[in-house]
Amino acid sequence: MQLDRKCGIVPPLFSDKDFDKLVEEIGATYQDRVGVNLQEAHNLPGQREVLEIVNKLLEVIFPGFSEAPRHHESLNAETAVLLSEIRHALYDQIMRAVRFKCHNDTLCCSDCDSLARSTGIVNHLLEAIPGIRETMKKDVAAAYNGDPAATSYDEVILSYPCIKAITIQRLAHVLYCEKVPLIPRMMTEFAHAATGIDIHPGATLGQGVFIDHGTGVVIGETATIGDNVRIYQGVTLGALSFPKDAHGNVVKGNKRHPTVGDNVTIYANATVLGDIVIGAGSVIGGNVWLTESLPPGSRISICPPEQLVRSPEKK
Amino acid sequence: MQLDRKCGIVPPLFSDKDFDKLVEEIGATYQDRVGVNLQEAHNLPGQREVLEIVNKLLEVIFPGFSEAPRHHESLNAETAVLLSEIRHALYDQIMRAVRFKCHNDTLCCSDCDSLARSTGIVNHLLEAIPGIRETMKKDVAAAYNGDPAATSYDEVILSYPCIKAITIQRLAHVLYCEKVPLIPRMMTEFAHAATGIDIHPGATLGQGVFIDHGTGVVIGETATIGDNVRIYQGVTLGALSFPKDAHGNVVKGNKRHPTVGDNVTIYANATVLGDIVIGAGSVIGGNVWLTESLPPGSRISICPPEQLVRSPEKK
Amino acid sequence: MQLDRKCGIVPPLFSDKDFDKLVEEIGATYQDRVGVNLQEAHNLPGQREVLEIVNKLLEVIFPGFSEAPRHHESLNAETAVLLSEIRHALYDQIMRAVRFKCHNDTLCCSDCDSLARSTGIVNHLLEAIPGIRETMKKDVAAAYNGDPAATSYDEVILSYPCIKAITIQRLAHVLYCEKVPLIPRMMTEFAHAATGIDIHPGATLGQGVFIDHGTGVVIGETATIGDNVRIYQGVTLGALSFPKDAHGNVVKGNKRHPTVGDNVTIYANATVLGDIVIGAGSVIGGNVWLTESLPPGSRISICPPEQLVRSPEKK
Repeated sequence: MQLDRKCGIVPPLFSDKDFDKLVEEIGATYQDRVGVNLQEAHNLPGQREVLEIVNKLLEVIFPGFSEAPRHHESLNAETAVLLSEIRHALYDQIMRAVRFKCHNDTLCCSDCDSLARSTGIVNHLLEAIPGIRETMKKDVAAAYNGDPAATSYDEVILSYPCIKAITIQRLAHVLYCEKVPLIPRMMTEFAHAATGIDIHPGATLGQGVFIDHGTGVVIGETATIGDNVRIYQGVTLGALSFPKDAHGNVVKGNKRHPTVGDNVTIYANATVLGDIVIGAGSVIGGNVWLTESLPPGSRISICPPEQLVRSPEKK
Repeated sequence: MQLDRKCGIVPPLFSDKDFDKLVEEIGATYQDRVGVNLQEAHNLPGQREVLEIVNKLLEVIFPGFSEAPRHHESLNAETAVLLSEIRHALYDQIMRAVRFKCHNDTLCCSDCDSLARSTGIVNHLLEAIPGIRETMKKDVAAAYNGDPAATSYDEVILSYPCIKAITIQRLAHVLYCEKVPLIPRMMTEFAHAATGIDIHPGATLGQGVFIDHGTGVVIGETATIGDNVRIYQGVTLGALSFPKDAHGNVVKGNKRHPTVGDNVTIYANATVLGDIVIGAGSVIGGNVWLTESLPPGSRISICPPEQLVRSPEKK
Repeated sequence: MQLDRKCGIVPPLFSDKDFDKLVEEIGATYQDRVGVNLQEAHNLPGQREVLEIVNKLLEVIFPGFSEAPRHHESLNAETAVLLSEIRHALYDQIMRAVRFKCHNDTLCCSDCDSLARSTGIVNHLLEAIPGIRETMKKDVAAAYNGDPAATSYDEVILSYPCIKAITIQRLAHVLYCEKVPLIPRMMTEFAHAATGIDIHPGATLGQGVFIDHGTGVVIGETATIGDNVRIYQGVTLGALSFPKDAHGNVVKGNKRHPTVGDNVTIYANATVLGDIVIGAGSVIGGNVWLTESLPPGSRISICPPEQLVRSPEKK
C-alpha cells in the first residue's frame, strides 16, 4: 500500500521552462503545415463525420441490419430522415474536400462553381442508391450460392465482410467518378480497416461479386471486374510497374491494373499484375502468379510444386 | 470567410417532389424484403447486442483484462452479475435467431419448444465456461512457449490477437453445435474484424492452440485441429472443391476441410486444402501447398524455389 | 404477437443452487490467478487507457487529422494540454507495467527507483516527439512518391494505414528501448488490429519507410529496416527457427530477424526469414522466399513458375 501511495505522486516532468521548450519544439515542426489540419486553411473532411455518413448509407442499403430492426409502417419515413441527414452532412464534407483541392492546386474556383458542383455530387450519390441496392442483392446472392457454409441471405448480410467492403466501395466509386478528393479513399479505408479487404474507390466492379474471407485482398485503382466474379482471401489485382516521367516522378492515374472478365474465379493468394485481360469464365488457381493476359475459358493452376517430404513411412 | 459563409447555405437537393420520388424508389427496392430487418418479421439478432455479449463473455474468461482491474473480494460477485446479464441478453438474441430460422424454413415450431430449446442453449454455453477457461489457459501457455518475443502470460492475454480470436471461436462453437442460427457466425466475424483471423464457428479446435500474428488465417467450417497445434499468419485450412447437387447448387455442410493431428506446426502462408489428414507431429513449411494426406511425423517444405538473382558481385 | 409475448418470459436458468454452483466453478478457475487482473496484485495497464494515450499521441503528431480541425492561434496551447494529459496518463500506465514486472520477477525495486525510472521514461517519449514527427513527414513523402494512386500528402495521412501503423510503432519503440513491459506491445497491437500491419515494437525502422496496403505484413522483434524502404502487403520479415536452451525452452530475445538495407523494395507476399542481411538497393520480387543474405544492389524474383494453363485457343 505504501508503494501505491508514494508512487501515486506524479513528479514534475521537467521544469516549466523545459516543458515550454518542448511545446515550442513540437510547434516548430508544424511550421511547414505538413500533417497539420487547420480550420483557417485546409479544413479537411473529418474522419468521424465521414464514418458516420458511411454508416448511415449502410443503414439505407440494408435497413435494420446495423441498428435496431425497423417497423414496416415507418420504413420510408426513416429512409427520408436518413437521406436528409446524409445530404447535409455529405454536402459539408464534400465542400471541405473541394475547397482543400482548390487551395492545394493554387487554383481558385468561384464560390458558386464549387457550390453547384458539390450539390450535384450529393444528388448523384443519393440517386445512385436504388441501383446500388439492387446490385448488392446480387452480391448477397453470389455469396450465398458461392459458399457451402452460408445458410441464408440474412447471415451473409450480417456476417460476411465482403458485403460491407463492396457496399462501401460501390458508394465511394460514385464519388470517385465525380472526382471528389479525399473522401472516397477515406471511405474505402474504413472498409479496409474493418474487413482486411482493400478495394480502391477507382476500381470498377460488376454485379454479383463475391469475395470470400477477404483478408489481404487488394484491388487496385484501375482494375475492372466483370459480373459474377468470385475472389478468395489474399488475392492481389495489382500493378506490375509504375512508369516515371522525365523528372523521375511516378506517373499518376494511367491504367495499370487487370481487367477481369465475367464469371471468372480467382482462388486464394493468387497474384494478378499489370494491365492485362483475364478472359470471361477463366479460373485462376490458388497461389498462381499471373502477369499476362488469358483468353476466355482459360484454367491456370500451379503445377504441384516440388516439395521436400520426409515421412516415417517413406523414410 | 466570404467563401465559408456562402458555401454554408445548403441548396435544395432536388425539389420536394424529386426527394419524395427518391424515397419511394428506394422503398420499392425494399419490397422483396431482401436485406431488410423488420421488427414485424425476422427481427434478426442485433450486431451491437451480440457484440456486447461477446465482450462480457471475454470479461468472464479473463476478468479485469478488458475493463478495469477487479478486486479479489468482489470477483465472484461480479462474475455472478456478468453471468446474469449475459444470460438474459443471450436468451433474447437466441430467441430472435431461432424465430428467424422458423420463419425462414416456413416451419412452425411451437412457442414452448423454441422457448425450452433456447433456454437450454444458454445453460449449455454458461456451463461450458469453466472448461473453456481452462482450455484458454493452455492456449496462453502455448503462445508463451511458442514465441520468443513473448515475455509473460499476461502480455499474451493483453496483446496476442489469437487469444481473442480463439476464445470467441470456442464460445461460438458451443452455440454452433447447438445449431443456433446466425449468432455463432456473427461472433467469429467480430473476431475476424478485430484480428484478421477467420475461424468458422464450426471448426473443432483442440487444446493449446497457438496462432502467431494471425492476419489472413482462414480455418474452414469442417476443419478439425488437434492439441498443441501451432499456426502462423496467412495459413489457409480450406476446401478444395465444392460438390454440387443435381440442380447445380452447392451442397452445404459436408466435411470438406483438413483434419490436423496433435503437435502439428504449420508455417506462414501454407495452404492446406480438402478433407485430408495431417498426421500428428507433422511440420508443414511456409508457402507449402498441400492437398493430400500426410502420415504422422511428416515434414514437408517447399524446395528452395528457382529464383532469378542478379547481384553486382556475381554479375 | 402471442409468440412474442410468451417468448419474452425468461425462464429460470437453473435453480438458484445451480447458478451459485456455476459461479463457484468459474471462481475456482481463477484461483491460480492466470488471466485474472486484480487491483490488489498485478493491476496491469488498461486497454482503454493505453488506447486513449495512443490516440492523443497521434493527435500531437498529426494535429487536426483525427479530431476536429485546429486553429492556428491555439495550436501550441492545445499541444501543451495534450502533452500534459499524455504525461499524467502515461506515467500511471508505466507505473502499473513496472510494478507488474517487479511482482512477476519476484524482485523488489525500491519505490523511488521505479518512480524515478518511469518518470524518466515519460520524459524520453515526449522528448522524442519532435524527431518522430520529422521522420513521419518523410514516411508520408515516401508513400506519396511511391504510390501512383496517391494524390496529396493529406490524403496519405488521412487514409493510408501504414501511416497509423508506423507512427504507433515509432512511439512504441521508444518505450520498448526503455524496457517498459507490456505497453509497447499493446500499442502495436492496436495498430495491427486497425491496419493488418503487425510490426513488433522492438523492430528498428529507418526514415522514409512506406508499406503499401499493408494487410498481412509481419515485421519481427529484431528486424532492422534502413531508409527509404518500400514494403508491400503480405510481406513477412520473420524468424527462421527458434533456438532452445538446455531445458528445451525457446530462447528469448536473440537476433533472429532480417536486416534490410537502405533503398530496398520488397514486393507483395515475399517471405524473408532469419538473421540475414539484404544489401542496400536490392529489389525482392513478389512471392520470393529468401533465407540467405544478398549483396547490395541484388535483384531477386521468382522464375516464371511452372503453371498448367488450359485455354480454348491452345487446347
